[in-house]
Amino acid sequence: MDLFEAMGTARSMRWLKPDPVPDELIEKLLWAGTRASNPNNTQAWDFVVVRDPEVRKALALAIAPGASYVRALPDPGGASGRRTLRGALNLIENFADFPAIIFVCGQNIFPPEAPAETMMYSAIYSAAQNILLASRALGLGCAYTAMHHHNESEIRKILELPDDRHIGVTMPIGFPENEFGPVKRRPLDEVVHQDRW
Amino acid sequence: MDLFEAMGTARSMRWLKPDPVPDELIEKLLWAGTRASNPNNTQAWDFVVVRDPEVRKALALAIAPGASYVRALPDPGGASGRRTLRGALNLIENFADFPAIIFVCGQNIFPPEAPAETMMYSAIYSAAQNILLASRALGLGCAYTAMHHHNESEIRKILELPDDRHIGVTMPIGFPENEFGPVKRRPLDEVVHQDRW
Repeated sequence: MDLFEAMGTARSMRWLKPDPVPDELIEKLLWAGTRASNPNNTQAWDFVVVRDPEVRKALALAIAPGASYVRALPDPGGASGRRTLRGALNLIENFADFPAIIFVCGQNIFPPEAPAETMMYSAIYSAAQNILLASRALGLGCAYTAMHHHNESEIRKILELPDDRHIGVTMPIGFPENEFGPVKRRPLDEVVHQDRW
Repeated sequence: MDLFEAMGTARSMRWLKPDPVPDELIEKLLWAGTRASNPNNTQAWDFVVVRDPEVRKALALAIAPGASYVRALPDPGGASGRRTLRGALNLIENFADFPAIIFVCGQNIFPPEAPAETMMYSAIYSAAQNILLASRALGLGCAYTAMHHHNESEIRKILELPDDRHIGVTMPIGFPENEFGPVKRRPLDEVVHQDRW
């Protein structure tokens, strides 16, 4: 798929089919993630791919309390915002049924005089963006989320994550339930400044 | 250009020609940046595009002290690491000559119970990754850098950046001096974990 077509239609897909995703497609997503920008090619990232139904079930139980958090959020006051909230709830409530979840993790190996944490996250978030774009090109749905924050300590235990690894992005993956619509954004002139602010 | 071809060859280009870049290509980069993932479509980002030679000169003076920082870094002990350091130095020393610089900025609008700073950066870094990929597809060179850290306070003054905006990525843009080679990464099995760590 053409790069710009993928970018123009790569939205987080929060409604996913339970059908399994072929291993070679997951591998292609991971290939894409590892092609991302990262500080001085340090590649201080790790990808935990969960497909085992038992592990998915344990993860789903861990994040289940997140549903009440999402339900208590204020009404975003617009059709699009409400759809996003319904989607977030759907992700939590059906977490065990998605065929794969990729956790994009990072390690803070950067010197203390550098803005260390943000350097680590530049690798993680760039990798996640590549995975989202690659999903789109492969006809897969993928949600770029911070769902692990609903219960990070328990998720870390289930994944047996070493203490020095941080979870940056939680990405449920599956074939999409819905069509891919265009990415909707504000006009450029609202966010672009010429030469100075 | 095909998405996967762009991902497989989109490296930070640290050697750029001074030739001007047509406005429509810069606009396409900004379009790409604004298509990126961001929390709940909040789009809490801003892009400052500097083309004015006087502003570029002022910025170049501001970051010039960064050259001694780079020169004092330990030898990375490999051809690729050394090339990156030479490239970083080249970016600092020729900053005024690059036809355009995009500063990807963010605003921390996220609630305090959220991991607010990292949510902001997820938008910024995803946008920068999209800009890097789009540059590749358009035949432009682009470097994904944190060069602003060499003298952030002065750069903020030159750009007249409001206090509540953060600079996340500094991206010099221009036609590339060198060929685009393949992105080199460790094998997947060194960074991918199945079902748990």
